[in-house]
Amino acid sequence: MTSPASPSAEPADLPLDVLVSQTIGEDLTAQLTEILPLLVRDLADVDRRMQDVLGATYPRLTDAAKYACSAGGKRVRPVLMAALHRALGANDTGPIHSLAAAFQLIHTATLVHDDVIDHAEMRRGRPSLPQAFGLPLAIVSGDYLFVRAFELASEYPRSIIMRCGEACADLVEGEVLQESGRFDLTAGREHYFRVVERKTAAIVAAALASVAEIQGSPPAVQDAAAGYGRSLGVAFQIRDDLLDVYGDSDILGKPLYGDFREGNPTLLSLETYESLDGARRAEFERLFGLRRKSPGDLLRLRALVDASGASARVADTARQWAERATRSLETLPPSPFRILLEHMAWGAAERRF
Amino acid sequence: MTSPASPSAEPADLPLDVLVSQTIGEDLTAQLTEILPLLVRDLADVDRRMQDVLGATYPRLTDAAKYACSAGGKRVRPVLMAALHRALGANDTGPIHSLAAAFQLIHTATLVHDDVIDHAEMRRGRPSLPQAFGLPLAIVSGDYLFVRAFELASEYPRSIIMRCGEACADLVEGEVLQESGRFDLTAGREHYFRVVERKTAAIVAAALASVAEIQGSPPAVQDAAAGYGRSLGVAFQIRDDLLDVYGDSDILGKPLYGDFREGNPTLLSLETYESLDGARRAEFERLFGLRRKSPGDLLRLRALVDASGASARVADTARQWAERATRSLETLPPSPFRILLEHMAWGAAERRF
Repeated sequence: MTSPASPSAEPADLPLDVLVSQTIGEDLTAQLTEILPLLVRDLADVDRRMQDVLGATYPRLTDAAKYACSAGGKRVRPVLMAALHRALGANDTGPIHSLAAAFQLIHTATLVHDDVIDHAEMRRGRPSLPQAFGLPLAIVSGDYLFVRAFELASEYPRSIIMRCGEACADLVEGEVLQESGRFDLTAGREHYFRVVERKTAAIVAAALASVAEIQGSPPAVQDAAAGYGRSLGVAFQIRDDLLDVYGDSDILGKPLYGDFREGNPTLLSLETYESLDGARRAEFERLFGLRRKSPGDLLRLRALVDASGASARVADTARQWAERATRSLETLPPSPFRILLEHMAWGAAERRF
Repeated sequence: MTSPASPSAEPADLPLDVLVSQTIGEDLTAQLTEILPLLVRDLADVDRRMQDVLGATYPRLTDAAKYACSAGGKRVRPVLMAALHRALGANDTGPIHSLAAAFQLIHTATLVHDDVIDHAEMRRGRPSLPQAFGLPLAIVSGDYLFVRAFELASEYPRSIIMRCGEACADLVEGEVLQESGRFDLTAGREHYFRVVERKTAAIVAAALASVAEIQGSPPAVQDAAAGYGRSLGVAFQIRDDLLDVYGDSDILGKPLYGDFREGNPTLLSLETYESLDGARRAEFERLFGLRRKSPGDLLRLRALVDASGASARVADTARQWAERATRSLETLPPSPFRILLEHMAWGAAERRF
């Protein structure tokens, strides 16, 4: 196994259309493209910070940790943190680089343990870490990423470390909640939003509130940053639900219908379940509840989702959360970075991968 | 599943013979028994601190975390930390309670993930956490214990948090190293001691060095504390190897021969391997290397260990490490607590469970 880690963040790694929705128009594109090189540099610094702390005495552990971190991904969190820091007036994002690296490592650690729990074979177009390195190494690599994240966080005041810690506790709770509701559509939207709040939204909220705190912003702005992050996180997750059924698996780098297979009651499945009439509703519930689903079962589930017309309503809901995110930004002074943040919220709700 | 957590640490939970070797004589027993109530109170405070931080919004996570922590165990680490703190002159161990809770949670987290990796069914006389709560909850509960540990550690200066973090990184490295050497006796003692150093000794060393630092002891005393912890940890592990073959499974609360089954090359197996003559050596190596071993295979391995006479030499080695531990204590002022620490090192090397 050679180390596939490539720590570089070349400008090519961060085209604008990865971050924002496709519909922003030429004028804005020109304006935002101008600020992109700054964020690319920020991202490269965060990447370097992450790579710096991942070295272990035992090379196979370094390899596994870097493999997990090098899968590219959209690196939405560090970009959001850097953009917010600049939107709040920072000219140098150095003070938040270690924290951004910490949050990115925490995010990666949970993906690794999720892949163990979900038996995921693919992640971003290549074998998942448990698939590539085996289950024992995947478990301890996840632990290792957590540990390095906390070491990075320890550069900050206790209040920031606690924001990190509470976000991690939320993540874990979200995972447990999700486990408790698998293959069951009856827990409904309340359960769904409780899971999303903890599993996806809390860490984005904590990361952005921490940036505002480090920049010395007043509590109202810290709250606004958290609110923006939370709403964007929810929009992002709802879009994720849609992509798992309507996305392009070649672009996503993993097969569709993972949520059907794992029995995750997504907003799309819940909306479908609630919209269908008696017989088809019962069929959807029965098929969804199967612990093992044949390709035929998956296609029938997809056909029922199609028939229910749920996807348009769910896409609307994602956009409502994006809009809510942009409203949280109204307390920030106007700047190209604020505009970028607004459009990143729209991008979260409309992205194709 | 009802919550089996019982946070109390009654004096009955900490009889002296759990901590020290049986051979200390009546005079010393009387002297040490006198200081025991202080440590029992310290331990109760540490337990309370641990229970305080384990509450989660989702009760099943709280249950799982408390299940992992309530298995009793010897709680050697918190006792060592409190005894050292007092040996260094502290009258109130309050300042180290959160740290002792943190180290105990880290230790517990790694046991939980070890039980996942090793497919362990039993731990201390009852079902292991993965067995009782399922694999997904076991993985995230381990994460949760790590997170709460770091939150506790964040009460301390950065240097202490980093000692925690580095000990965790060592633990993870130890686990990876151990994985890499399974079913293979040829890596030898060097590999064995590298694993033990990281997997068992480093965290005891870090815990005790941290106590000395918090108490304001000079660097030489911090180093002595670390050295004592490291040597005691090695003695403890070597004794563990012996108990896995020669212990009483009813007292240990888990079946014997776990290391044979999992292919862990213990010092006992290495000593056996090196001592046997050609044919029996080849037989031992072949049987040890089997991924699945029948009861007959296990009994034959045991018979070969018996025949080699390795156990007496390995027991000697454990005592040498205990002695090395006691020599590290020579820089400390004389006190009943120092005497207890000395005898806890002997206890680690001679314990029956």
